[in-house]
Amino acid sequence: MASDYLSQTFNALADPTRRAILARLSNGATNVSDLAKPFLKEMSLPAVTKHLKVLETAGLIQKTKDAQWRTCTINAKPLEAATNWMEQYRAFWEESFDRLDEYLKELQAPKNIANKKTKKKTRK
Amino acid sequence: MASDYLSQTFNALADPTRRAILARLSNGATNVSDLAKPFLKEMSLPAVTKHLKVLETAGLIQKTKDAQWRTCTINAKPLEAATNWMEQYRAFWEESFDRLDEYLKELQAPKNIANKKTKKKTRK
Repeated sequence: MASDYLSQTFNALADPTRRAILARLSNGATNVSDLAKPFLKEMSLPAVTKHLKVLETAGLIQKTKDAQWRTCTINAKPLEAATNWMEQYRAFWEESFDRLDEYLKELQAPKNIANKKTKKKTRK
Repeated sequence: MASDYLSQTFNALADPTRRAILARLSNGATNVSDLAKPFLKEMSLPAVTKHLKVLETAGLIQKTKDAQWRTCTINAKPLEAATNWMEQYRAFWEESFDRLDEYLKELQAPKNIANKKTKKKTRK
């Protein structure tokens, strides 16, 4: 679907099952069948495998083969680029707090200015 | 597609055109036709409109109607939750540097321990 790295990362994260898989792997490398187990109540094994494939394509997990086991390991490196991309917009989501800050400052300090303006008006 | 907020946010970001739209809007609110203009070389107006709809559904942009204009404004608030989600994994993407640190420390300091072990082996 998405060919560029950022799109692949965001696309991989755009699903609650895939995020849950990453959360499980953050506790340590897990073999594929143990990893799939808790999801098999809600979906088939091929469906879980498909989610793993999306995560693997995005470079968020790595599969290794030890003897008969296929083990999955988390690789959070692509999340660094994604976080850096989002950080550009931090000022925008913090803006509302800044506005609140400004409003609170206005409420406290410059009452005199406001009063002066009002007095001027009433003198006319 | 994705019903939960995080999935909607990540899904909206999983496209270079949608990220470019957000980048343009970070310079200020823009009316829809001006916003669409640079993208019309590569796609149709309905395609741009579809991208705007995805961003709007994810709450990343807001459309307002002033007289005859439809204006788009960025709303980066959903990016805060997405960043917070990713921050949980920061330790993982910084891990490789920690390992490098450990390796460098090993190279410098505990040479004696390594030497002792080697000596023990050779004594056998």
